[in-house]
Amino acid sequence: MRTDLCEVLGVEHPIVGFSPSEHVVAAISRAGGLGVLGCVRFNDADELDAVLTWLDQNTGGRPYGVDVVMPGHEPTEGAVTDLTRLIPSGHRDFVEQTLLRLGVPPLEAASSRPGVLGWLHSVARSHVEVALRHPVRLIANALGPPPADVIAQAHSRGLLVAALAGRADHARSHVAGGVDIVVAQGYEAGGHTGEIGGMVLIPEIVDAVDVPVLAAGGIGSGRQIAAALALGARGVWMGSVWLGTSEYRSSPGLREALLRATSSDTVRSRIYSGKPARLLRNRWTEAWAAEDAPAALPMPLQNLLVSEAHDRLMASDDPTVVPMPVGQIVGRMNEVRPVAEVLTDLVTEADETLSKIQKLL
Amino acid sequence: MRTDLCEVLGVEHPIVGFSPSEHVVAAISRAGGLGVLGCVRFNDADELDAVLTWLDQNTGGRPYGVDVVMPGHEPTEGAVTDLTRLIPSGHRDFVEQTLLRLGVPPLEAASSRPGVLGWLHSVARSHVEVALRHPVRLIANALGPPPADVIAQAHSRGLLVAALAGRADHARSHVAGGVDIVVAQGYEAGGHTGEIGGMVLIPEIVDAVDVPVLAAGGIGSGRQIAAALALGARGVWMGSVWLGTSEYRSSPGLREALLRATSSDTVRSRIYSGKPARLLRNRWTEAWAAEDAPAALPMPLQNLLVSEAHDRLMASDDPTVVPMPVGQIVGRMNEVRPVAEVLTDLVTEADETLSKIQKLL
Repeated sequence: MRTDLCEVLGVEHPIVGFSPSEHVVAAISRAGGLGVLGCVRFNDADELDAVLTWLDQNTGGRPYGVDVVMPGHEPTEGAVTDLTRLIPSGHRDFVEQTLLRLGVPPLEAASSRPGVLGWLHSVARSHVEVALRHPVRLIANALGPPPADVIAQAHSRGLLVAALAGRADHARSHVAGGVDIVVAQGYEAGGHTGEIGGMVLIPEIVDAVDVPVLAAGGIGSGRQIAAALALGARGVWMGSVWLGTSEYRSSPGLREALLRATSSDTVRSRIYSGKPARLLRNRWTEAWAAEDAPAALPMPLQNLLVSEAHDRLMASDDPTVVPMPVGQIVGRMNEVRPVAEVLTDLVTEADETLSKIQKLL
Repeated sequence: MRTDLCEVLGVEHPIVGFSPSEHVVAAISRAGGLGVLGCVRFNDADELDAVLTWLDQNTGGRPYGVDVVMPGHEPTEGAVTDLTRLIPSGHRDFVEQTLLRLGVPPLEAASSRPGVLGWLHSVARSHVEVALRHPVRLIANALGPPPADVIAQAHSRGLLVAALAGRADHARSHVAGGVDIVVAQGYEAGGHTGEIGGMVLIPEIVDAVDVPVLAAGGIGSGRQIAAALALGARGVWMGSVWLGTSEYRSSPGLREALLRATSSDTVRSRIYSGKPARLLRNRWTEAWAAEDAPAALPMPLQNLLVSEAHDRLMASDDPTVVPMPVGQIVGRMNEVRPVAEVLTDLVTEADETLSKIQKLL
């Protein structure tokens, strides 16, 4: 299975793999896909620089990309200390009482991270600046259109720019702004996601724009890749599936939670970042869905509010509370395998499917 | 494009078309698909009998099916007068005040219909009894597993039994109960629908059961049919798309609302029947989504509550309030065409897609 996007990206298979883990990203690129590193976790640009240097040495000379998060509407900017003053005390009390009720112990040492700041434009811009110093093939923006100067800078260095879209009108405005590749991301997807299912959204975006489209949301098998190609996509963008690979350094509790979740065990909620994102459904998300729970705060305040709670929930390693963005495909993530094996199976099954369905003609 | 389901159903194309309109159903069957008549609107079994007699004379000898609604958990049974006593007066007040606020005039004559009773098991059973007196090829159940005696009766007359499923475990229990065909219906679908997107749900159900699967939810083009086949379905089940055909006798206001809606203009809500169903999003659904709105009542009380309101909203023919179950594919329903033309295009595009994607091998 090859599409014109293979040439454009310089890869063997039209499979783009997103992961916050550089180990996963390197393995995807080495296996013939395009690994894309999620940068939102890097509050410190130097730390990202070091990780990209590691990637430069570990992708076997194959291309890779980065994913930054610049929301279309810039959220409130400011230093962490100023921003935290905007958080209502009732919200803080709810978080503390919920953690107590769920039996989540305090951290042994104070949390060293102030929360995810990568969705502040100022921080995302520092990610772009660092990325431009490395041989990155593609910059993707996960929320809204990338700013014009970022696109211009990327293009002047020969990079491709991709942007995620959950609606056809968003895709059209991305392309009008100069985006080279649109990622049509359906409701099924993990993390920030819209309300239109992939079956409807993918062909709608394919018809709305004149650039190549990657299909995203719920994709974890070669049959689904073949379906995405039938819908007019030129490749796929996959994220959740890599959380189940051996390269993703997961704690035992998180791994157990991912392995046992069914496709019904996710929920789309604003509690992670302030914008709707699909998460593992568990006792933590259910607490926020209760009638007495406060409404989530806007981005970036909500993540600052829950940041230490996220650290505590993760440190507890209790599979019934781990806070985790993941798509509905989690129901099919039932064994831990190396990235290369997953990728080979995807390609084999896609080829078999393409070959099989032509017999229905 | 042919699958083994064509033989089983006795049709030319593996396209099953659901509609509450006998005119649409007859046209689908005549054009080589399997038309399936939605029976829930028939409170009076004799009326259904007359319509099936008309179908017997108007499908050109081609097979057709019926769709009844028997919820897995039987809703409260009872005569309409007893059931209406269970409706809180606060709910009645909300409906009346909302209609006033939306500028919806009262009916000129008192409403003659007591609301949809077709989802009472007693009424659905009367539909089955009538259907068994006609040369029906397939009985589908739209909510939950059909009762064992209904399946046995259908099988003894040589009929096929289908059931809709929004989760793999539901599909498994349908098949364990004797169902012959599972309709895997994704979140994108109009009317009663689950939370799992088709891209994830369809292959999950295909792998979960050993009977043929029809893909449903958001399907309105040949590319989507090819995608459904790639996902392992043996055919498709389409509903919303026929609302945009010339055979569907739509009022001007409803037609305008359907033609101008985008894929973002639907909402999944319990306000139509008491169970989650996807509807056109408009001023009526938004009123129920407001903070001060009451929660929807359980099935069948909610529809009894809003039944006269539905008649008033429809009679107003105001495109901003018409109460209408429809899927996200409504965004692609942009011109009114005859059923036969729609069906021919579906088949042609599916064939072209199957032929095109094999070149990616």
